[in-house]
Amino acid sequence: MTDAIQLGLCGLGTVGSSVVNVLKRNGELINARALRPLKLAHVGARRDNPLCSLEGIRVSRDVFAPADDPEIDIVIELIGGTELAKELVLRAIGNGKHVVTANKALIAEHGNELFAAASANGVQVCFEAAVAGGIPIIKTLREGLSANRIEWLAGIINGTGNFILTEMRSAGRDFNDVLKEAQKKGYAEADPTFDVEGIDAAHKLAILAAIAFGMPLQFDKTFTEGITTLDLVDVAFAEELGYRIKHLGIARMGARGVELRVHPTLIPEKRLIANVDGVMNAVLIKGDAVGATLHYGAGAGGDATASSVIADIVDVARVIDGGSSQQVPPLSVSQTALESPDIVDIEDVETAFYLRLSVLDEPGVLSTITRQFSDVGISIEAVIQKQPADDEKTVPLILLTNKTCQKTLQQAIDGVQSLTANAAPIVRLRVENLG
Amino acid sequence: MTDAIQLGLCGLGTVGSSVVNVLKRNGELINARALRPLKLAHVGARRDNPLCSLEGIRVSRDVFAPADDPEIDIVIELIGGTELAKELVLRAIGNGKHVVTANKALIAEHGNELFAAASANGVQVCFEAAVAGGIPIIKTLREGLSANRIEWLAGIINGTGNFILTEMRSAGRDFNDVLKEAQKKGYAEADPTFDVEGIDAAHKLAILAAIAFGMPLQFDKTFTEGITTLDLVDVAFAEELGYRIKHLGIARMGARGVELRVHPTLIPEKRLIANVDGVMNAVLIKGDAVGATLHYGAGAGGDATASSVIADIVDVARVIDGGSSQQVPPLSVSQTALESPDIVDIEDVETAFYLRLSVLDEPGVLSTITRQFSDVGISIEAVIQKQPADDEKTVPLILLTNKTCQKTLQQAIDGVQSLTANAAPIVRLRVENLG
Repeated sequence: MTDAIQLGLCGLGTVGSSVVNVLKRNGELINARALRPLKLAHVGARRDNPLCSLEGIRVSRDVFAPADDPEIDIVIELIGGTELAKELVLRAIGNGKHVVTANKALIAEHGNELFAAASANGVQVCFEAAVAGGIPIIKTLREGLSANRIEWLAGIINGTGNFILTEMRSAGRDFNDVLKEAQKKGYAEADPTFDVEGIDAAHKLAILAAIAFGMPLQFDKTFTEGITTLDLVDVAFAEELGYRIKHLGIARMGARGVELRVHPTLIPEKRLIANVDGVMNAVLIKGDAVGATLHYGAGAGGDATASSVIADIVDVARVIDGGSSQQVPPLSVSQTALESPDIVDIEDVETAFYLRLSVLDEPGVLSTITRQFSDVGISIEAVIQKQPADDEKTVPLILLTNKTCQKTLQQAIDGVQSLTANAAPIVRLRVENLG
Repeated sequence: MTDAIQLGLCGLGTVGSSVVNVLKRNGELINARALRPLKLAHVGARRDNPLCSLEGIRVSRDVFAPADDPEIDIVIELIGGTELAKELVLRAIGNGKHVVTANKALIAEHGNELFAAASANGVQVCFEAAVAGGIPIIKTLREGLSANRIEWLAGIINGTGNFILTEMRSAGRDFNDVLKEAQKKGYAEADPTFDVEGIDAAHKLAILAAIAFGMPLQFDKTFTEGITTLDLVDVAFAEELGYRIKHLGIARMGARGVELRVHPTLIPEKRLIANVDGVMNAVLIKGDAVGATLHYGAGAGGDATASSVIADIVDVARVIDGGSSQQVPPLSVSQTALESPDIVDIEDVETAFYLRLSVLDEPGVLSTITRQFSDVGISIEAVIQKQPADDEKTVPLILLTNKTCQKTLQQAIDGVQSLTANAAPIVRLRVENLG
């Protein structure tokens, strides 16, 4: 057995304490797989965490201490946030240490700079835990599917949002009601903006897309639409049409460039990914050789995230003596080989659409309205129109269009909204077949 | 750019020609990911394959020629079978070449010997394509989940069988009828024994289990039960009880050792894996840290299999100069660290059971029969009994038991079969919750 790899852990929250516990519980097994012992030698944390014991481990109250400790080979960054974490990771890299992090915001927003620094210093920055928790999706995309031209990927990559959508559908509860429960259960933060507005999913999508298409991280160009305004009635109408609404992160390589978008999406209920419920995550990847593959598992939680953090550590440990400092480039190709395709403006992205109109219950309305769509070349694939309730003068009218871009659709919508038969703003959701 | 890696391909069937085509189609992309050019330099094949062009590639009619070619770095074994393939792979290893193979029978039956030879010669033997086609399941289990103690795994790892079961359920067609269609579509061989008797699945299960539990390959100890005698009526009763029947390969680490078994299995229809239909494959893995993860995709087909073959080549190419000859041990831990837990006899494996009896339509029958089960400590979790058709003297009686071992169940079955109320042999299928 060669010398032990010395690990330094910065941050001792839920994931940090799970890393301590899993390393202890499965230590012998993990060492056998890493082909050498891993030793958690130094923890930097402002305070202890009752969820784990640090007996026999050097502890510093300065979270940066492990990054400056000359004994440490691999620094595990679990402090979260972006500014301090960035400083910490750059410090570790500068000190010649490999870095493992679970920090999606850090990688999505500062990854390009961190990878360049790591490459210059001959160390690795690993981030499997940053996307989809315990699912080894980075490894799958970067190594397992390396023969493929990736055509598109679509993921349920925020557990909080998926929990809310699942409850809305299965229990018929509205968004705010379920959000409160999610907060009580610890699935959602006190300020849920990052989750429900799709920012967290956009961080993860930016990472997956950069790897899939061998391009720099482009979080700031990701279109993001949340689920906060999603109405229960649309969940029900979608179901009636054979669809489920999921909050998807979608990246697609097309003739005009790369689409990067997070939004509520209708998908056919027969797709496996439509049946991924609760806080679970799943990523569907379409490669030109392999076809579609789906990867499902826990997207959050201490132990599941620790599973990916430790897998990264084992990967580094297995090659740490290999001489080749960066065995697998962070974004699948070397920093110098990254390409920068255009990012398609959301206005130009083509999808099918679900529309809910509220129209006056008068003769000829359906014809008048659908003409606005056919006039701009949009055909209607499905319609739901029901009789009004006794005291109602308007009825909901649900339309499913064929594939079109938002720009063209907007012309039709403008036309409809100028009609007297139209009684309210039009609800618009995107539809993806994912076939 | 460093020197090109020279690839030698042995065998030019469906997968071989796909490897040629995908390497050509995505060559630039694959080279960027491999960090150096891959050059298909020598093909050994008895005859050309019209599905691909070998222009500019040295071709030998002796399939062994690439293994003896001093220019070749990596030999791709795609000739199939076991004896000749074993000889070829040992020859390549002896010549100091890395080997990539898609041959599950070869690995399952001779892997221990091949890995020992590879280790002694400082080369790698990679076999991602041997299990579940294009799904990177070996990599997921061996690297992505390396932090976990694997508790169990269960897979739909034979597409032919899954196609047949899917058609039986969805179209109400019987086994032989669907088998004929599968043969016509090219999903099943003229002699379908390997697929429908579970031998192919047992090969793959033995490989997955060896990696999951860090033990030598033990194909010969795998219990195998096919789907040839599966009756349509049981598919329908299973559905009535909320289950689907899938032909699963299951490996489980328990207190008494490792269970290794392939058999038709009732699983709750709400599980994602119960909804994996047609020729698709999926593997569900339960790790102690990550929980359950599911990995889904095409289990066969030229391009999907080539996807995994080429991913292995890229893996080897990325580390070929690294000095460390076997970065990731074939069975997850080094050859010397493999352990040999007991393999549990199928008689001692505990599961719930589905039973279909044919009983006389007489008063007190249900009580008499169920007493046979309670007498040996088995409780009945669900029952279906229907009124007999007008001209029938017997009725089917469906019982779902709690978890028990086959030995105990057999006592109850012996008791029932001695009763005059019992009119026919009892159909018995295992049930797994997979929760």
